Amino acid sequence: MPKRKNVPSSVIRRLPRYYRFIGELEKSGFSRISSKELSLRMGLTASQIRQDLNCFGEFGQQGYGYNVPQLHEQIGGILGVAKHYPLIIIGAGNIGRAIALNIDFESLGFSLSGIFDIQPSIIGQRIKNITVRPITELEDFCNENKPKTAVLTIPQTAAPDITERLVSAGVIGFWNFSHYDISNRYPNVAVENVHFGDSAMTLCYRIKDIDENSDK
Amino acid sequence: MPKRKNVPSSVIRRLPRYYRFIGELEKSGFSRISSKELSLRMGLTASQIRQDLNCFGEFGQQGYGYNVPQLHEQIGGILGVAKHYPLIIIGAGNIGRAIALNIDFESLGFSLSGIFDIQPSIIGQRIKNITVRPITELEDFCNENKPKTAVLTIPQTAAPDITERLVSAGVIGFWNFSHYDISNRYPNVAVENVHFGDSAMTLCYRIKDIDENSDK
Repeated sequence: MPKRKNVPSSVIRRLPRYYRFIGELEKSGFSRISSKELSLRMGLTASQIRQDLNCFGEFGQQGYGYNVPQLHEQIGGILGVAKHYPLIIIGAGNIGRAIALNIDFESLGFSLSGIFDIQPSIIGQRIKNITVRPITELEDFCNENKPKTAVLTIPQTAAPDITERLVSAGVIGFWNFSHYDISNRYPNVAVENVHFGDSAMTLCYRIKDIDENSDK
Repeated sequence: MPKRKNVPSSVIRRLPRYYRFIGELEKSGFSRISSKELSLRMGLTASQIRQDLNCFGEFGQQGYGYNVPQLHEQIGGILGVAKHYPLIIIGAGNIGRAIALNIDFESLGFSLSGIFDIQPSIIGQRIKNITVRPITELEDFCNENKPKTAVLTIPQTAAPDITERLVSAGVIGFWNFSHYDISNRYPNVAVENVHFGDSAMTLCYRIKDIDENSDK
């Protein structure tokens, strides 16, 4: 797969959805699908799908559509879902705990290797067979286990210091649930933000829009 | 504020971030800020900020910058953060519970009015002073309380049926944590998706990219 540089971020962001959809097709027993059929199911145009996938090489065969299991495996390879990058969770409050318990990291390219917190009442608890460690042990743990990725489920005020410590310890990717703007400060690390508040406010705007227009 | 129609979705999606940043400036005692200073802090260009805000009317004064408390209030008004749209959570598992406990809905345009589940062991529990109700009471509750918004923290397999019931009961907005594609089926409701798996896979792709390029 030679074409890889400068893939637009919007295309990268759509890849997991392709992976999910095609995985579901595979589970339902599809062995082949046309780009038109796939486009109908995904609510995208067939040309959009072809364009997106073309960023990563040649897929499918003119007139024959896509081989479903093969395409699923190829997109999985592009995403790196079999990579098992060691990952740690910083913050074992409600959100951190829910993420630890509900996310199947192994199927998403990661392997959960540590959970840290600052609260004495939380430290020592076991979540998914992992004992929550005190944040004071962070550097020793990173030296030994070399996590590439950290999930931040901590308050915004604690985030700058922790982020600095994690970057120094070799972390190159953040799944950021805090409101701290990591990319501004560290342009060379990978950051995926999940900003619940922003998402809820965007929804509020849209509901207000529907609500106000239906009054007229 | 006359200009409102056809605001690009990318602009809408940036509004909450403006609201947060400007709120933080206000808390730090700023009364006025230039678009240049704001742009440096937010990692956007000054012209991008002016363009974005121009979609909603006139803000700031040439040469004088923005009045911080006023701009914060105006953007809050555009988003509808004081609306208190009644909202229900469907699914009180780990994620639903964490969302109920950690999200300050009142500051984001909503008011949490009900929580539903299907598990006998969860029904009757109290979360944030709200008793978890059985899903069988959904229609009666909606008739009485008219929730506009539902948070879906349920498995994908349960989502089509529940979504249909909610839309029939008058729900016009979904905060969707399931993998069910609501927009495809109901193009006229507002949907904000939070797809943890997609987000984690996007992060994996980016880490892989950094990792592979640093090997060279």
